[in-house]
Amino acid sequence: MARRDWPLDELAAGVKAGDTRALARAISLVENRDEGAAELVRELYPSTGRTFAVGVTGSPGVGKSALVGSLVRHVRGLGLSVGVVSVDPSSPFTQGALLGDRIRLADHFLDPGVFIRSMGTRGHTGGLAQATLQVLLLLDAAGKDVVFVETVGVGQTDVEVTAIVDEVVLVLMPGAGDSVQALKAGIMEIPDAIAVNKMDQPGAKGMLSDVRSVLSLAPDGRRPPVVLTDSLRGEGVEELWGAVVQRRDELAAGGELDERRRRNVRDEAAAAALVRVRRAIEEALAADPALADVVAAVERRELDPLSAGETIAAAVLGGARS
Amino acid sequence: MARRDWPLDELAAGVKAGDTRALARAISLVENRDEGAAELVRELYPSTGRTFAVGVTGSPGVGKSALVGSLVRHVRGLGLSVGVVSVDPSSPFTQGALLGDRIRLADHFLDPGVFIRSMGTRGHTGGLAQATLQVLLLLDAAGKDVVFVETVGVGQTDVEVTAIVDEVVLVLMPGAGDSVQALKAGIMEIPDAIAVNKMDQPGAKGMLSDVRSVLSLAPDGRRPPVVLTDSLRGEGVEELWGAVVQRRDELAAGGELDERRRRNVRDEAAAAALVRVRRAIEEALAADPALADVVAAVERRELDPLSAGETIAAAVLGGARS
Repeated sequence: MARRDWPLDELAAGVKAGDTRALARAISLVENRDEGAAELVRELYPSTGRTFAVGVTGSPGVGKSALVGSLVRHVRGLGLSVGVVSVDPSSPFTQGALLGDRIRLADHFLDPGVFIRSMGTRGHTGGLAQATLQVLLLLDAAGKDVVFVETVGVGQTDVEVTAIVDEVVLVLMPGAGDSVQALKAGIMEIPDAIAVNKMDQPGAKGMLSDVRSVLSLAPDGRRPPVVLTDSLRGEGVEELWGAVVQRRDELAAGGELDERRRRNVRDEAAAAALVRVRRAIEEALAADPALADVVAAVERRELDPLSAGETIAAAVLGGARS
Repeated sequence: MARRDWPLDELAAGVKAGDTRALARAISLVENRDEGAAELVRELYPSTGRTFAVGVTGSPGVGKSALVGSLVRHVRGLGLSVGVVSVDPSSPFTQGALLGDRIRLADHFLDPGVFIRSMGTRGHTGGLAQATLQVLLLLDAAGKDVVFVETVGVGQTDVEVTAIVDEVVLVLMPGAGDSVQALKAGIMEIPDAIAVNKMDQPGAKGMLSDVRSVLSLAPDGRRPPVVLTDSLRGEGVEELWGAVVQRRDELAAGGELDERRRRNVRDEAAAAALVRVRRAIEEALAADPALADVVAAVERRELDPLSAGETIAAAVLGGARS
């Protein structure tokens, strides 16, 4: 719909020129799942690859959004342009916000060097990571030096989102024992850096040493920096950003950053294919009476769900099934 | 391989008769990803549907395994036969165990009315939920009255696993603030019952009232029972099991249990189709030189990953692509 009043080539040129209105319009196309979004990303993709993309992940309530706000302020102070994409439903950028956070972050909305956009997380199954990737690519094409991708550290969405960034910062707070246990059990991947936020709360120092002792057992021998921060007062933020940049330089020097980016784009392509194929499965289940019979047989316990899955897959894959 | 020395029809008959050796062999077929496993499940599926399947989920370290152990003891005391499937890599059934837990749980290995099996969670991407479903169906066909599915409450695996059970019990402990925040933010689904485990630790009562106040805000108005437990001493376990059974009776009376089971088997069939199709995508990427060129173009940033995904999907879907 937006395409009619703003031709795609002009919109693409506007995004590339860093025009904020063009960028906002382009991102709206992504959010409205307009077909134009895919065309736009296709056109702009050769202009991407310059942004430093940092994922900021952690449980709800640890202060991720406020920490991102502090990081934005710090990075802006270094003269870099910034974008923020939030995919946390509990983020102040979205709903469920603490008013104080919302006001603090709203400061940045007035800064033309900062572009902030939150993604709704409901009803997006599978497509959310894809939409987030599209927004990240648009911010990249628009010339943002740094883009923060804020994501809640729970569930499938997070796993997919961390695969589109260059580095991952995990935010913890005193009392967030679940995350430390998940790190310890090897269920959560070791991030590039860790912030122990709300450093004034009791237990912050204990959390710091817990995390360090868990990391000392990490199988790859790498010990990511752990930084105490206070997102509201901005304490520790300079140190955290220093650790993130140092890690990037190390990754770049060893060739790992390029390898990580190549792996990311390969994974993104495979994930996009899977989203498309999942839609084909849903369409086939809704439209093909033979498949409806298959599902009914499963419900009657005449056919097991795994055999039914083979039949459904065969129908979708058509002649290509091996 | 196991098929050669134990014909499938005899194995199926053995499982149906509740023979423990046959069951162990059948489950080994699943774990070895033997093709015989699918055949076996197909043959046994009409004999399933009688087991009451209870998911027990929670962060690592909250004492899930010990609580399952206590539940097993209690349910055995009621004269019911029990199966346990663990998909928690930090479970004492697998690695990373506390010795004490392992010994306590090992008691049950000597009880012929209890069958316990842990699933390795590494290198199973996508297939783990499917393997867990197969084991659950085998335990069902073998006549287990109750099957507990123990799963860590983090990541994709958990989401898939909870879709194969009748009820979900969430296990928390004092200090597990992340989970409460995730419930509050609506990121974690409201379970059927909640156990606040390690009830003797400081903060247990506070956690209890935190959880209750979060649940009082739940959109559907349902307030799942919250029970204080001590998995090591077995305290609160009878009350917890009572709550689980009461919930099942409510769900059954309202027809919701049947609806949930129908939805589960539909989802299982769709998920099985997706696993199959994902394999087709991986095979196509590995075997088709044209697709290798597509991926290379993405790496050179000549083609964006979403367009590449469309091309890959089209190749896999063959003529069936709409």
